[in-house]
Amino acid sequence: MAKRLGQQTIVLDKQPIVLAGAAIVGRKEGDGPLAKYFDEVVDDEYAGEKTFEAAESRLMRDAFIKALEKSGKAAKDINVILSGDLLNQCTAASYAFRDSDTPYLGLFGACSTMSESMLIGSILIDSGAADYVACAASSHFCSAERQFRFPLEYGSQRTPTAQWTVTGAGTVILGKDGQGPRITCVTPGKIIDEGIKDANNMGAAMSPAACDTIVQHLQDTGRSVDDYDLILTGDLGSFGSAMLRELTVRNHIDLKSKHNDCGMMIFDLARQGVDCGESGCGCSAAVFSAYILEQFRLGLLKRILFIATGALLSPTRTQQGETIPGIAHAVCVEA
Amino acid sequence: MAKRLGQQTIVLDKQPIVLAGAAIVGRKEGDGPLAKYFDEVVDDEYAGEKTFEAAESRLMRDAFIKALEKSGKAAKDINVILSGDLLNQCTAASYAFRDSDTPYLGLFGACSTMSESMLIGSILIDSGAADYVACAASSHFCSAERQFRFPLEYGSQRTPTAQWTVTGAGTVILGKDGQGPRITCVTPGKIIDEGIKDANNMGAAMSPAACDTIVQHLQDTGRSVDDYDLILTGDLGSFGSAMLRELTVRNHIDLKSKHNDCGMMIFDLARQGVDCGESGCGCSAAVFSAYILEQFRLGLLKRILFIATGALLSPTRTQQGETIPGIAHAVCVEA
Repeated sequence: MAKRLGQQTIVLDKQPIVLAGAAIVGRKEGDGPLAKYFDEVVDDEYAGEKTFEAAESRLMRDAFIKALEKSGKAAKDINVILSGDLLNQCTAASYAFRDSDTPYLGLFGACSTMSESMLIGSILIDSGAADYVACAASSHFCSAERQFRFPLEYGSQRTPTAQWTVTGAGTVILGKDGQGPRITCVTPGKIIDEGIKDANNMGAAMSPAACDTIVQHLQDTGRSVDDYDLILTGDLGSFGSAMLRELTVRNHIDLKSKHNDCGMMIFDLARQGVDCGESGCGCSAAVFSAYILEQFRLGLLKRILFIATGALLSPTRTQQGETIPGIAHAVCVEA
Repeated sequence: MAKRLGQQTIVLDKQPIVLAGAAIVGRKEGDGPLAKYFDEVVDDEYAGEKTFEAAESRLMRDAFIKALEKSGKAAKDINVILSGDLLNQCTAASYAFRDSDTPYLGLFGACSTMSESMLIGSILIDSGAADYVACAASSHFCSAERQFRFPLEYGSQRTPTAQWTVTGAGTVILGKDGQGPRITCVTPGKIIDEGIKDANNMGAAMSPAACDTIVQHLQDTGRSVDDYDLILTGDLGSFGSAMLRELTVRNHIDLKSKHNDCGMMIFDLARQGVDCGESGCGCSAAVFSAYILEQFRLGLLKRILFIATGALLSPTRTQQGETIPGIAHAVCVEA
C-alpha cells in the first residue's frame, strides 16, 4: 500500500525496482560527453524510416526492445507500457507500441513524461495492479523543429536561450522483484504558470515548476538537499538551471553542488554549439535510462531525486498570446 | 490492494466511489436527447473567451468546478487531477487546470481519455496514493475541425462516415469513501491497428480496439454480456457500432441489446444531421458524467462496462500514408 506524506508526496511500500534501462540516441548526442553510456547511436536521422516521425517511433520501439532484453523479461511479462512524447497526438509512442501486444496507457507531460511514467508505473506496481511495467519517452530534433518551430529547410536562426531538442528515446523496466535501484517515493507536480511568453525560452517557463516540486518534496519528506547525492532536473538548460537556483534560494533552499540538469549533461555546450543545452522528452529519458542507472550500478549514486520538467505549451496557444505553463514530477530513486 | 485477474484485468479491493460528475456542453449537444441531464448548455461557441481553444479550456474548468461542488469536496481535497483532450499538446486540459493548485497528471488516449483517467484514478485511490481524484476530458467542435480537418471558414464537405466532434467537457470526482456507484475492476486496452487509413472513418479505426478490450474483459472475469446492464462504448458512431457488433460475433460474443454508444446517444442522428454520430473526448466524458450517473442514481443501472474509445492518429502521420491505430480502456462501474 502506498501512503500519503505531507501535501503531495506518496511513499511506496513495495519500493518497485528499476530492473534495467536502455537509451538510443542520434548522432549529435552520440558526439557528447555521455556517448559511451548509450546503448546505440543512430547516425541516420531517418533511422532507416521514410519520415522523421517514423524515425522517432523506431528509436522508441528499439529502446523498449533493448531494455526488455537487458531486464531479462519478455514482452508478455510487461503488464502495461506507459509512454508519451512531444509530437502532435503523441504518435511517436502510439506508433512505436502498436505492435507490442501489451496494454498501453498514453501520457502527456511534455518533457516531464519520463518521470510521470515512472511515477504512475511505480504506483501501479506498488498497488498490485501490475508486476512489471515499461516507462518510455522520446523526442527527435527534426520532427520537433518541424512541428514546434520551422521546418529545417527554412534554415531559421536560433535565439541565445533556445534549447536543442534531443534525438533519442529511453525506456526503463520497473518490476515488483529483481535487482536494481528502488523507487521509494514520488511527488506529482502542479501546473505552474509564471507568465513566460517566449517559446524560445523553455527553461524559464519550466524552472518555477521544478522549484515548486522540489520545495514541496523536501517539505513533505522533512529532508534537506544534503540527503540526496543528486537533484536531477530534466531539461532546464543553463538559463533555466540558473533560474532554478535563484528560485530555490528565495525558498531558503540552497541546491549547492547537488543540482544537475540532463539537458546540460548530454552535450558539451560550448563545443557542440547548442546554446542553452538540450531539451525534449527524450533528453531526461535517455540520460536517466543510460548514464544514471550506470552510476547506480557502479555504486556512485545512493539516492537521487529525478525531476523531469515539461513546458505545456502549444504553437496555437502561443500564437494566441498565451503564457507557457510548466510542470515537473519528482521520483526518488535509491540504491 | 489491487489484484490482477486473467491477462489484462485489475480487480480493485477498495472499490473507489464515483462521488459526483458534471458535464457542460455546447448548443448542438444541448439540442439533443440528453439535454436535460447536462449541468449547463453554453450557447456561445467561444464560451465568453477569445478563441475556440480557450473556450474548450473554459468548459473543462467549469465542469471541474461544478463536479467539485456536487461532490461536496473542495479543490484542496483533490490529490490529483487526471485529464487530457484532443488539442495539440493537450492544452485544453493544461490551461484549464493551471490555476487549480492541484497536482496534475496529463494523459493522452485520444477519445479514450475519460476511461483512461478513471482507470488510473481508481488505482491511485485503491493503492492509497490518493484519497480523492478528479478525472476529466473535453473536446470542442470548432477547435477540433481547425486542427484535424479544415478551419470552419473553408466550408468543406463532410463524408457519410464522418462524425461530429462534441463540444463539451465532463468531470467525475472519485473518492475512497462517500456515496455513489463504485469502480470494481478495470481493463487497460492494447493498441490495435487493423489498417484503416480513412481519417474520416474513426469508427472503423476504433471498433477493433473496443472489441479486443471487451472480449478480453469478459474472458478475464469469466463474465458474459448478460452480467451487464449496459456495455457502453465512447464514440464509435453508427458505422463503428455496427462494425463492433460484427467483430464481437466473430469472437462468439453477441452484444444483444446491451450495447450502446455515447456518440449515438447524444444526438438525434437523423434530425440533427450529424452523419454517423458524435465523437471527441468530451462525448463519452459528458454522457458518462451526466446521463449515466443519473441512471445509477435512479436505480436504472446496476452494472455497466464503460469503454471509451480512441483513434491514435495525427494529421501528420495520416498525410504520410499511415494507418490509424485505436485503443479502448474498460472500467466496470456498479451500483
